[in-house]
Amino acid sequence: MSRLDLKRGTVEMIHGSGGRASAQLVAELFARAFRNEWLDQGNDQAQFDLPPGRVVMATDSHVISPLFFPGGDIGSLAVHGTINDVAMAGARPCYLAAGFVLEEGFPLADLARIVESMAAAAREAGVPIVTGDTKVVERGKGDGVFITTTGVGVVPEGLRLSGDQARPGDRILVSGSIGDHGVTILSLREGLGFEADIGSDSQALHGLVAAMVEAVPQIRCLRDPTRGGLGNTLNELAQQSRVGMQLDERTIPVREAVRAACEFLGLDPLYVANEGKLIAICPAEHAEQLLAVMHAHPQGREAAIVGTVVEDPQCFVQMQTQFGGNRMVDWLNGEQLPRIC
Amino acid sequence: MSRLDLKRGTVEMIHGSGGRASAQLVAELFARAFRNEWLDQGNDQAQFDLPPGRVVMATDSHVISPLFFPGGDIGSLAVHGTINDVAMAGARPCYLAAGFVLEEGFPLADLARIVESMAAAAREAGVPIVTGDTKVVERGKGDGVFITTTGVGVVPEGLRLSGDQARPGDRILVSGSIGDHGVTILSLREGLGFEADIGSDSQALHGLVAAMVEAVPQIRCLRDPTRGGLGNTLNELAQQSRVGMQLDERTIPVREAVRAACEFLGLDPLYVANEGKLIAICPAEHAEQLLAVMHAHPQGREAAIVGTVVEDPQCFVQMQTQFGGNRMVDWLNGEQLPRIC
Repeated sequence: MSRLDLKRGTVEMIHGSGGRASAQLVAELFARAFRNEWLDQGNDQAQFDLPPGRVVMATDSHVISPLFFPGGDIGSLAVHGTINDVAMAGARPCYLAAGFVLEEGFPLADLARIVESMAAAAREAGVPIVTGDTKVVERGKGDGVFITTTGVGVVPEGLRLSGDQARPGDRILVSGSIGDHGVTILSLREGLGFEADIGSDSQALHGLVAAMVEAVPQIRCLRDPTRGGLGNTLNELAQQSRVGMQLDERTIPVREAVRAACEFLGLDPLYVANEGKLIAICPAEHAEQLLAVMHAHPQGREAAIVGTVVEDPQCFVQMQTQFGGNRMVDWLNGEQLPRIC
Repeated sequence: MSRLDLKRGTVEMIHGSGGRASAQLVAELFARAFRNEWLDQGNDQAQFDLPPGRVVMATDSHVISPLFFPGGDIGSLAVHGTINDVAMAGARPCYLAAGFVLEEGFPLADLARIVESMAAAAREAGVPIVTGDTKVVERGKGDGVFITTTGVGVVPEGLRLSGDQARPGDRILVSGSIGDHGVTILSLREGLGFEADIGSDSQALHGLVAAMVEAVPQIRCLRDPTRGGLGNTLNELAQQSRVGMQLDERTIPVREAVRAACEFLGLDPLYVANEGKLIAICPAEHAEQLLAVMHAHPQGREAAIVGTVVEDPQCFVQMQTQFGGNRMVDWLNGEQLPRIC
């Protein structure tokens, strides 16, 4: 059997057969790029020891279109997204699993580029991809590649972060500017050219989280405002905790290029997806210390306190606008941006 | 917002938006069916304690077509398949995660049926689905529903099963008749009617595995012969352990209806997928005891010793046929059955 043609070859149905061609795809592409002691064992599962503590598990399916974009691709996004979901429990992400659904005819060169990017993201984050699976569907029954990643991690002793822990008086922080990822993807898709100045913020946030929970273990909850953006994520948290929220628009960091693109596109940056930002809610007395810790970390340099948790049996999120008015930040009702992650 | 129309409604792009419609789909369909304390927390990840021991993680993407078949559907299959991958390490499966990729226009009634079936399979197996994710792709960019499940479990103290542990002289056992799943799916797809007499063998095997490893902790390795069937799986194990294998065709259990269907279809049952069978390799001196334990379990009543591990630097799997000849059981080279799981 000759080697995979990673320059001109394409994904074929036979690569999903479970036979020799499947084994070759795994060996010459996936196992080569992800190389580690667990994959080298060649079993259908990985075995490892976890440090003591509560275990965290998160899974995310990725269907972003287009597959490649300024600041990343579906591969790096699939690694960052799941690492972040694990990290938002205050946990240290330890291991990743990856399931691929490939479409017949997809260029192996593109697949190799995606897999290399995943491997680089996993290496950089220090979270190995230890097990996986690959399936192939017929042309027209998929869209290039979908990647589902699952992560496990461990929560340090004494932490119990959850979306239902916000209390009136708590402060709401965000780690940096919002809307970068969503605007980049939409601009690219529509051929608008804004993405030249922006780029996705896709990144793994577990380093920032570790610094934050070590300094301020009193943090109530962390969440990354991905699909649905800051607006929806705050509504989710308000509902879970049965509280209201009062935001101050002037303090919410939005990059100029993102603001301009949103105006052009008729989008509200509050509802645009992020892939490298987090929301933190913590007791008021720890907010300044938490902000200082975030500012001292490369991923939190633009962090800001953007609002306060308030008592509200209706769980409304409201925002004082830059012009002094007060507006509702409701759940996103319509479809804003399909296939953004 | 009115309730989901689970009778006449369909999956819409907005169900993947991360907004209110996404939250509704999760609340009224997934969380309702899978209901447990972890999902009720409403976080993007689940937190739990694991019993002490080495942790096992496995992931499987499911793209089977058709989605419903005699003996199961993509939902129950996705639960059984991943539980089995975890169990094959000798582990007790503890928790599952599920990622869904839905196609726009897919009937919500079908989705509900699949989700109910997953919930029932998880309940029956005692392995809760504690976290998940849902994405939606445009019509023609998917195929109804793809489900990626990931499982974690824990290996009892003292066990170290792996595909590289087979040694010359070991015995090879299978837990029951082979080929049922693959023949059922193919017959259904081709409208041949054989499936009326057969049905998929899809089932979770962790109960059988627990009985086996408790009685015979000396087992070298377990593996479920899914895609690629018994033939490929034994070749994988032979390669991993750097050994050869000698099978005896007369001892390999194949149901009459499966044998007849395979003859009609020109298939070799050795390469047809199973979803509820396992291969065990164990030292010769424990083989009879292991067989007795399997026979005593409802999932192992038709278990058989089907061959012996031999020394062979070329790692060939060979089989003495019922007519006394010896044939090579090579890796499956061609595509036998696409989208079988």
